[in-house]
Amino acid sequence: MLRVGGVLETALYVKNLERSLQFYKAVFDFAVIASEERICALQVADRQVLLLIKEGASVRPRATPGGTVPGTDGSGNLHLAFWVSASELEEWERWLRERGVAIESKVTREKSGESFWLQASQSLYFRDPDGHVLELKTV
Amino acid sequence: MLRVGGVLETALYVKNLERSLQFYKAVFDFAVIASEERICALQVADRQVLLLIKEGASVRPRATPGGTVPGTDGSGNLHLAFWVSASELEEWERWLRERGVAIESKVTREKSGESFWLQASQSLYFRDPDGHVLELKTV
Repeated sequence: MLRVGGVLETALYVKNLERSLQFYKAVFDFAVIASEERICALQVADRQVLLLIKEGASVRPRATPGGTVPGTDGSGNLHLAFWVSASELEEWERWLRERGVAIESKVTREKSGESFWLQASQSLYFRDPDGHVLELKTV
Repeated sequence: MLRVGGVLETALYVKNLERSLQFYKAVFDFAVIASEERICALQVADRQVLLLIKEGASVRPRATPGGTVPGTDGSGNLHLAFWVSASELEEWERWLRERGVAIESKVTREKSGESFWLQASQSLYFRDPDGHVLELKTV
């Protein structure tokens, strides 16, 4: 059985690339791997990249010397969760408030199964400039 | 400086949850962590979950005993990339064809910088049942 190694790129579609880039740099300190007019790539962790894609700018397939990259686009309030250490969640809350990021809600979950994902956890929810739903969840 | 550990959850919005679940199980063999009428959670890797969310079913905030989970929704042809071993890319291509998944394009990229993300790579692009743009990229 073939298995992928993991999620390499996850994408959010944004109205103003510069505004989003500033937000993700200020809040998460992600390193900027690539920054173009149409797309930015931010390093979240080892082998994990967050793509910020300007809405409507990548709809059509793009021919490159190495082949054609299919078009992509999206809208709505997409969801993206990052994991954080449980011991740091309070610091994160303070950190977000200091940067003017409103905490929309806090959620406590009880253990509901054996998977790591179903263990007891706490989450902070807040929005990015486009209204995408970001979550910091303890693991 | 606080740092997140990584991307824990990335979400795709789908028209038919059962159809998507079958696709992701058949193509990627992801384990199903949770399966409800509104949402499925699939384990991609350690601390990496792919959420399949039924379009339009999670728009409103959802009150839970532990707090309110904000609403989320999305549409379009979202992009999601997984990394695979370079030595397995040919096997992946055969594997996809055997399962009736059409390869939309192949892209070869030359090294364009020092970041792991900018090294020489090869990608296979194909679609999930909702037309989301999936990529297998070698690292």
